[in-house]
Amino acid sequence: MSYEIATIPGDGIGPEVVDETLPLLHEAASRHGVEIEFTEYDWGTERYLETGQMMPDDALDQIVDADSILLGAVGHPDVPDHITLHGLLLPIRKEFNQQVCKRPSILFDGVESPLRGYESGDIDFVVYRENTEGEYSDAGGRVHQGFDHEVAVQSAVHTREGTETIVRAAFEAAREREGHMTSITKSNAQAFSMTFWDDVVEDVAEEFPNVEVESLLIDAGSMDLVRRPEEFDVLVASNLFGDILTDIGAIVSGSMGLAPSGNINVDDEYPSMFEPVHGSAPDIVGQGVANPMATVLSAAMLFENLGEDDVSDALWSAVREVLADDDAPATPDLGGSASTGDVVAAIEDRL
Amino acid sequence: MSYEIATIPGDGIGPEVVDETLPLLHEAASRHGVEIEFTEYDWGTERYLETGQMMPDDALDQIVDADSILLGAVGHPDVPDHITLHGLLLPIRKEFNQQVCKRPSILFDGVESPLRGYESGDIDFVVYRENTEGEYSDAGGRVHQGFDHEVAVQSAVHTREGTETIVRAAFEAAREREGHMTSITKSNAQAFSMTFWDDVVEDVAEEFPNVEVESLLIDAGSMDLVRRPEEFDVLVASNLFGDILTDIGAIVSGSMGLAPSGNINVDDEYPSMFEPVHGSAPDIVGQGVANPMATVLSAAMLFENLGEDDVSDALWSAVREVLADDDAPATPDLGGSASTGDVVAAIEDRL
Ligand SMILES: CC(C)[C@H](C(=O)O)[C@@H](O)C(=O)O
Ligand SMILES: CC(C)[C@H](C(=O)O)[C@@H](O)C(=O)O
Repeated sequence: MSYEIATIPGDGIGPEVVDETLPLLHEAASRHGVEIEFTEYDWGTERYLETGQMMPDDALDQIVDADSILLGAVGHPDVPDHITLHGLLLPIRKEFNQQVCKRPSILFDGVESPLRGYESGDIDFVVYRENTEGEYSDAGGRVHQGFDHEVAVQSAVHTREGTETIVRAAFEAAREREGHMTSITKSNAQAFSMTFWDDVVEDVAEEFPNVEVESLLIDAGSMDLVRRPEEFDVLVASNLFGDILTDIGAIVSGSMGLAPSGNINVDDEYPSMFEPVHGSAPDIVGQGVANPMATVLSAAMLFENLGEDDVSDALWSAVREVLADDDAPATPDLGGSASTGDVVAAIEDRL
Repeated sequence: MSYEIATIPGDGIGPEVVDETLPLLHEAASRHGVEIEFTEYDWGTERYLETGQMMPDDALDQIVDADSILLGAVGHPDVPDHITLHGLLLPIRKEFNQQVCKRPSILFDGVESPLRGYESGDIDFVVYRENTEGEYSDAGGRVHQGFDHEVAVQSAVHTREGTETIVRAAFEAAREREGHMTSITKSNAQAFSMTFWDDVVEDVAEEFPNVEVESLLIDAGSMDLVRRPEEFDVLVASNLFGDILTDIGAIVSGSMGLAPSGNINVDDEYPSMFEPVHGSAPDIVGQGVANPMATVLSAAMLFENLGEDDVSDALWSAVREVLADDDAPATPDLGGSASTGDVVAAIEDRL
């Protein structure tokens, strides 16, 4: 098999982690008879500062035929986030209809949780986050800007199509895992959107009689990811709530530097996009010490999504082995002093 | 001085913690020459199940002349939250224009944080939460209900008046405290409401040149309350974001059973309302083991708001002393096996 993968290193540590990782991905793939061709796109804030555009007008046409997309990070200290993100990351998620965002949180062997008493293996859940609508719908406005009677409105728009898609994806995952799904809402305060969400969960649940469903409010759910993360299996949440839960999930399982994610177009009409959750991390950019593991695991999710489970498994195992090995190099986020390249080399050794 | 205080014990453990606490509050007040008269209102879900109403039609008229309100909890396993909360708690916050919700998170001496390496005193921040609008505005609807093309819309409405009020209250608090304020937004994804919020923070900041302002996204902020809670002083956030942050704040500082809150009408046109953050806790109701400390501390905030700082300080100190004393009774949420009444008695002993 042979695949074309578009890479968008992007901003901050994005290029560092993506560029260092590509040879490793080539190697992992070719060992399993899989060929990959990477095409790099230099979109991002540097480009914006020169041209006023995060990506060219025909950007999505350029990559629409790729088999998948690997993205580094978007965001720059000198440019407001709503410009950079609305100029690059969010349009890809939306225009390629990547409705399902999948983000696992795992406390790996060899990694310390900031939570007292948690050992490796204790935390292992996955968040299914709605990824193209809801609170990120970009609907709203500001009236009487600057005046005392100014009003800003931000509308969350949830469609049945979008909500059923994410909820069904979560149920399917729960059926393959422990059979337990937690739906996160805020029905007590957001009576329109969230009672609708609850209704969809109830409807879709009928197709999955063996999955046990729990419903939690976002405030209690955020707290419970700190209080009892071991009890979660699959969580399903709206765009905003999923955003919040996955950052909490990343920190309780030890490091933002380990959290991968997939933005998945479920009917394969468009390419899916895989990216580390960590973002551009301006504080460590250029030092060569960014943890590449979140990118490697995101690539593992990419291969799984392409059906190349052997390549995916090989990458997951190699990362797990490096983490579990006290003598293996570790980047500063994990308490070590190794470089990005050292860690990539250690992963490659264990392929 | 003499004050009339309306009490609404409400649902679940609400009546247990409020009823046990009132004699203690009487005692604390009278020692400082302050008289209080409590009038109890039996509003809540029991009433709803009998009459179809959480509170009578003229409920707010009945309590509008009170000097303050002490509320236990609202919520019941048999009735959907959006009915109970929209029937009792949220209308009081909104109709009495309690725009400022103030919620301290403190890791007290004698209390263990679930976070590794945190000692008492390490965590001490306060969240100022907008309390009457934003994501809780109750604006929206459902179109084509039940059909495939159903759409649900939930609109967050933020006014300059409301936003300036909460932001100014937070700045004032920061000026009295460590001079550090963190504004929590999600400007990168919610370009209307949150860039407006950022603008208001920038405007109000001019009145407070000595307060240092940091801006964080809600996902990063939620994570950072777990990763570096010691670095926060005052946080300011919208209604929903404040809701999420204060539950995380409660858990990292040891127990939901210790978290007090105030819903404050800043121009004293209407009574303010004080309530523990914990809610009705159906899992432990009727066992007499609910921690009364969040209610006692909420009452301490009530007295502070009335200008009765001596009574307030006495209650804070007594609670701190009980927590710091290994031999003092503790409820199960703190690892003990004492009853609500035992803990109230221990606090009273230390007045
Ligand atoms: C950068 C930002 C727009 C993005 C989001 O909110 O989705 C990020 O936080 C994420 O989780 O991928
Ligand atoms: C019960 C609920 C409506 C309420 C809220 O969301 O404000 C609660 O979570 C709180 O924090 O006081």
